[in-house]
Amino acid sequence: MTVATSTRVQALRRAADPLVRFYTGPLYRENAARPGICDFAFGNPHDMPLEGLTAALRAHSTPRNKDWFAYKNNEPASRELVVRSLRDRDGVPYEPEDVFMTNGNFGGLAVALDAVVDPGDEVIFNSPPWFFYEALILDRGGVPVRVRVVPDSWDLDLEAIARAITPRTRAVIVNSPHNPTGRIYPPDTWRALAQLLEARSRAAGRPIYLLSDEAYCRIVFDGHRFESPALHYPDTMVIYTYGKTLLAPGERIGYLALPPLMARERREALRPALFVAQMVTGWAFPNAVLQHALAELDALSIDVARIQHRRDRLVKALRELGYSVHEPQGTFYLLPRAPIADDWAFAERLARHDVLCLPGEVVELPGYFRLSLTANDEMVERALPALAAAIR
Amino acid sequence: MTVATSTRVQALRRAADPLVRFYTGPLYRENAARPGICDFAFGNPHDMPLEGLTAALRAHSTPRNKDWFAYKNNEPASRELVVRSLRDRDGVPYEPEDVFMTNGNFGGLAVALDAVVDPGDEVIFNSPPWFFYEALILDRGGVPVRVRVVPDSWDLDLEAIARAITPRTRAVIVNSPHNPTGRIYPPDTWRALAQLLEARSRAAGRPIYLLSDEAYCRIVFDGHRFESPALHYPDTMVIYTYGKTLLAPGERIGYLALPPLMARERREALRPALFVAQMVTGWAFPNAVLQHALAELDALSIDVARIQHRRDRLVKALRELGYSVHEPQGTFYLLPRAPIADDWAFAERLARHDVLCLPGEVVELPGYFRLSLTANDEMVERALPALAAAIR
Repeated sequence: MTVATSTRVQALRRAADPLVRFYTGPLYRENAARPGICDFAFGNPHDMPLEGLTAALRAHSTPRNKDWFAYKNNEPASRELVVRSLRDRDGVPYEPEDVFMTNGNFGGLAVALDAVVDPGDEVIFNSPPWFFYEALILDRGGVPVRVRVVPDSWDLDLEAIARAITPRTRAVIVNSPHNPTGRIYPPDTWRALAQLLEARSRAAGRPIYLLSDEAYCRIVFDGHRFESPALHYPDTMVIYTYGKTLLAPGERIGYLALPPLMARERREALRPALFVAQMVTGWAFPNAVLQHALAELDALSIDVARIQHRRDRLVKALRELGYSVHEPQGTFYLLPRAPIADDWAFAERLARHDVLCLPGEVVELPGYFRLSLTANDEMVERALPALAAAIR
Repeated sequence: MTVATSTRVQALRRAADPLVRFYTGPLYRENAARPGICDFAFGNPHDMPLEGLTAALRAHSTPRNKDWFAYKNNEPASRELVVRSLRDRDGVPYEPEDVFMTNGNFGGLAVALDAVVDPGDEVIFNSPPWFFYEALILDRGGVPVRVRVVPDSWDLDLEAIARAITPRTRAVIVNSPHNPTGRIYPPDTWRALAQLLEARSRAAGRPIYLLSDEAYCRIVFDGHRFESPALHYPDTMVIYTYGKTLLAPGERIGYLALPPLMARERREALRPALFVAQMVTGWAFPNAVLQHALAELDALSIDVARIQHRRDRLVKALRELGYSVHEPQGTFYLLPRAPIADDWAFAERLARHDVLCLPGEVVELPGYFRLSLTANDEMVERALPALAAAIR
């Protein structure tokens, strides 16, 4: 009697292996909680939370009626708020019935995949990817298809995506601003991708959905502008979480939205499917307090200028020290090249100097290391001598 | 291009059809929000929330360190608290590593099924069931196998379960105290079920898991005592939510726990599988504030004596009016027979008298109707003349 678990969960455990190895291994476990460590490993907060977040949570924890903590799903007030937020951002009128409230982008992605992917359907994602795309696809019985982005420019490789599409392709996942490269794909990229997906959807006789992970859409630098592919490709699902602007991934609220560009008939077919998927993925809806607080939460943000300042400080200093590093246009991450080929060994070397980073292999970029700009300024200053020592 | 959604989600939409039909249909939509309605349809609150809940949420919304709202998963403090809570309840020492924090029982069930069910595996559930067992099983590619409980006694039909088990049986879902019959299965039932499952697991060469949905384990009446099957069958997964004692299903926290009776080797095989399943089902972990507040939440409860009093009032009055109704030992529900065969028609008749109930067909019990005892006392008093008029 050896088969204790499902084979699916074994497969997706393997897919998440580099992350699980890092997260449960000694490098992270022995260093993350160590006093004096400069922790750049994940996009976790290293300053006290936003006061506005605390105020909003406290205010909306006080019930105003008997239904305050009753079952919540796609609450009409939440949907209206998201419609206003997307109108302000994109200038187009989303419909409230096309907004599906989620407990963050894990939930949003799981719901989207559940609603459209049948076993054997292929889902393309771009590498380097967010940690869990592959596991989420596998969990729905889908076949993950990995396409590398263009090295150094970190642009989407549209020709490689075109080659990867087959009649079984059901969805393509994109992420802009892109974790971990910080690249914001321009409208031209979306237009070319839309042309490609429209042609191949027509050929296949069924839609290829574009799942647009827009977690970092408000974390942009230098006046860069994020434009959603939902303005260019009708069969897009916008997937958003407030976890980045609030820097509070432990209080989870986000949404999935179908754009007005999508044919009404298709949206009407997807609406009940998405609602059922929200339930069966394990109740993917955000909690009551967060939905009550959404108007305040939507207006709140960490100081992105300060993240940008941290990026500037680190990019300049890293280059002066001899590191090769590009300048991200958004997100929380820097992605320097490790000065030695073995990025795990280099991460261990950095840890001995009290700097905790993510080895590039964990995000399918061996030879690089990822630094999260959510580390605080004091950590940045203390890290610079360590980064200097580690490259010597 | 007609195939907008996955066939899986279409199948489970059909499995949830009676509930979706009720929840989105005119009977519920036109009546639930109507002033003056006595709403007995769902286990939702009809009195103001517990003051202790508000106090706990507010207190723990104030951050005490920078990590207050950071990513939370199976937090050590939460696990320790659950271990203490289960030791107090069951008298056995669960291990912290065997406790998996969830956002309620939707999440707990999805995680359990994800971790052990392969496509084609059969999962037995007892009918009348909770609304979503069948859909949750289908969503993991499992084959739902329905076994009716014994009519009138509402006991588990162990012989029928024995007949339903095949070499592909991977799990059996039980729910005690049972929604909607209010039946608490006695230890003898668990012992007999354990014998059966042990023999059939041995024969099949792999474990048949018992998924024990214990959502209502603290909502018991008349000094009845709930005893968990985890004390009798080693391969049990205990699945619990605080949503019932707190009567706050919109603020979701619960857990899945592997009992110390389960072989250590099996627990060690399940631990990483459950952790991965918690992530890929869409981040099934409870939010930060709820985990911080767990010690207070675990000690809080609605007034179960008052629910029992409401049961007594209604059972007595219903019987006097000529309804046939048994006396539930626990849960939030009464299950009278409808005086006419068509329970939807009877529910509509009741709604015209300002009483909203759940037609029995929605819980696979045509000819019955379900009344939730979470309605408030004032609703109960106003409902009695309506129930009198409806049976005339």
